[in-house]
Amino acid sequence: MRATGSGRSRGYRAERELVATLWRMGFAVMRAPASGSKIKRADYPDVVAIRKGKVAVFEVKSRRKYENIYLSRTQVRKLINFTERAGGKAFIAIRIPHEGWRVVPVENLELMGNGNYRLSKEVIEKAPNLTEVLKQLGFIATLDQYTKGRSK
Amino acid sequence: MRATGSGRSRGYRAERELVATLWRMGFAVMRAPASGSKIKRADYPDVVAIRKGKVAVFEVKSRRKYENIYLSRTQVRKLINFTERAGGKAFIAIRIPHEGWRVVPVENLELMGNGNYRLSKEVIEKAPNLTEVLKQLGFIATLDQYTKGRSK
Repeated sequence: MRATGSGRSRGYRAERELVATLWRMGFAVMRAPASGSKIKRADYPDVVAIRKGKVAVFEVKSRRKYENIYLSRTQVRKLINFTERAGGKAFIAIRIPHEGWRVVPVENLELMGNGNYRLSKEVIEKAPNLTEVLKQLGFIATLDQYTKGRSK
Repeated sequence: MRATGSGRSRGYRAERELVATLWRMGFAVMRAPASGSKIKRADYPDVVAIRKGKVAVFEVKSRRKYENIYLSRTQVRKLINFTERAGGKAFIAIRIPHEGWRVVPVENLELMGNGNYRLSKEVIEKAPNLTEVLKQLGFIATLDQYTKGRSK
């Protein structure tokens, strides 16, 4: 989430939208407390979704357009640690206006020379949307049931 | 959580303590956003803990002494709905000074004539502590590893 006021409120809206979408898909969904605060930063991913014991963990990014996204090594390490404890799968979910969600497994992040991580514009552009990812990984059984256009 | 300021801050402390304890036990743990606010009330249980795909969902209560605790039918229905989606087990966790945690499965609540629920003082007094419950239900493998006296 960006440090600017508008970026932060856009990030909040994206998180709430992701929570609502996953809830409609039948997941139990929890959003992190006080996103952007020190407490949040310390321990929690942005959104955790659970369905019959299967766990999907999300860091949520909102961008106006396709572009490279950078994540700190600390953020990625905490995301992976939480997900390993839970026994789930970790994703970066990117919301782009009129493009919907692009969802990238954390394994697809590129490690940079400085120890931080990059998600390239090209990888985001080619990434599947939310229902495609959840279907591929067996979180949801049927695609048709939830699909309302590619953006959902 | 009680409506008084002191009751609410005691409730917060209890939630944070439960989160820290479950984290030490190896769970991925998430606390609800803005406990006590409208958003929290709408959807989320107080604490969700996940370990290798097993999910424990908690409503947290803090009391100065053993006494009956009352929960609204709405609160209980939402707790059960969330837990069924997740595929987990729901508990009421009660923190009492110098007594530690007493943990009661949601099935042990008594339905009252008005549709709300009661957790009786007697049930709370006889309830197991956190490690005992998690051991019984197979969330954690060994009791010895985590036990530091009966109160944990």
